[in-house]
Amino acid sequence: MPRTAAVVVIGNEILSGKVRDDNSPYLAAELRALGVALRLILVVPDEEEEIARVLRECSRRFDYVFTTGGVGPTHDDVTFRAVARAFGVGLRESPEIKRSILRRCPQPSEEVLSMARVPQGAEVLELPGVSFPPVRMGNVYIFPGIPQYLREKFQALRERFRERPFFTRRVYVAQEECHIATELRRLDEEFPQVQVGSYPQVDAPGHKVVVVLEGQDEQVLEEALQRLLELLPGDIVVRTE
Amino acid sequence: MPRTAAVVVIGNEILSGKVRDDNSPYLAAELRALGVALRLILVVPDEEEEIARVLRECSRRFDYVFTTGGVGPTHDDVTFRAVARAFGVGLRESPEIKRSILRRCPQPSEEVLSMARVPQGAEVLELPGVSFPPVRMGNVYIFPGIPQYLREKFQALRERFRERPFFTRRVYVAQEECHIATELRRLDEEFPQVQVGSYPQVDAPGHKVVVVLEGQDEQVLEEALQRLLELLPGDIVVRTE
Repeated sequence: MPRTAAVVVIGNEILSGKVRDDNSPYLAAELRALGVALRLILVVPDEEEEIARVLRECSRRFDYVFTTGGVGPTHDDVTFRAVARAFGVGLRESPEIKRSILRRCPQPSEEVLSMARVPQGAEVLELPGVSFPPVRMGNVYIFPGIPQYLREKFQALRERFRERPFFTRRVYVAQEECHIATELRRLDEEFPQVQVGSYPQVDAPGHKVVVVLEGQDEQVLEEALQRLLELLPGDIVVRTE
Repeated sequence: MPRTAAVVVIGNEILSGKVRDDNSPYLAAELRALGVALRLILVVPDEEEEIARVLRECSRRFDYVFTTGGVGPTHDDVTFRAVARAFGVGLRESPEIKRSILRRCPQPSEEVLSMARVPQGAEVLELPGVSFPPVRMGNVYIFPGIPQYLREKFQALRERFRERPFFTRRVYVAQEECHIATELRRLDEEFPQVQVGSYPQVDAPGHKVVVVLEGQDEQVLEEALQRLLELLPGDIVVRTE
């Protein structure tokens, strides 16, 4: 079984529909490419207690938890406090982050210095070329909400999460789902190691459903693909990928 | 206090990074426009037990729960079963949905007919001009995952969710957050009825932060805006909206 992950997106602006979350789609694709099974995405408000509640549960259930957002200097940035609360610890000042702050803002206010107050026991992940290091607390990795900064930091860390890759095959079908549901159920039952997904396409020219097969054993996946092509009437398969 | 909501997006394809979720941003914006406070978005896999667990909790904590996805005829469509499980009831065949199926697919297989098996006690919401009616079970509204169909159905129902609207004012600031964090905290403390959000802009020409004020009392919001303009040095405010 691959390692599992949850992504916790922290931000009122997403819940109120003002900003679109670009971070969870990015992390979903990255984790998939790394072979990590993302099992849950949550978007939560900028509220310490609610974030702590969610992190406590996710940290227990999944191998990795990635948070985005809430690490700036303003009153609505409560992620470090929430992580500390989730783990039942206090805060300490990180000299590494304080140095980053002073480089950018030579006379920081109390609010700005609060960005350096990380959970006790957290690791500050200093990375070459990355200012404002990301922070890890247990299995929780804390990233900023600004997509450019999140990506820079995730890229610098990504190899530590690599697992066996997932392989994918796609079958484009010219008929609607109701004509292939029986065959797909059978395939799903015959190949428990393969994820069988069925995705109707409303406006696609030439096909009505994409069947996606996925797994970490390339040979079993190939067998599942051949079996599917055997089960479906040949004249409705537009192409495979 | 406005009514609260959660959106539960059901779909492996989003967790695996293959498909981008367009439904939760749509519902977030719609609910905001209606004055409903969206408090949580979850993306969960196509697994009956996990969906049931999440729905049980959300149904208890929020006024409305909106699900998207998992209502088609294939083996990975488990939403109705999961809702029934969350509420501890069985399934019954809906004659209204069965009629919709037969119009589209005159000789349906067993899998296709399973689309008509809704939780016992659920209301099938027949709406003018909408085929495949959405289903409500308690405070859980069940929508399809295909964005076009979700939108058609939500639009037909939206007025039943209308509350007092939220009002929004924006202040564009030429300085980074670290220069205004103290003033924002003060504003946030002085106006508990107003949500004060601070959003750094990396590539915006002419401003570095957008401060967003929101509330359901337009006059209090206006007072908060005036107070913020008083607190901030005048030369860093680029414009207000």
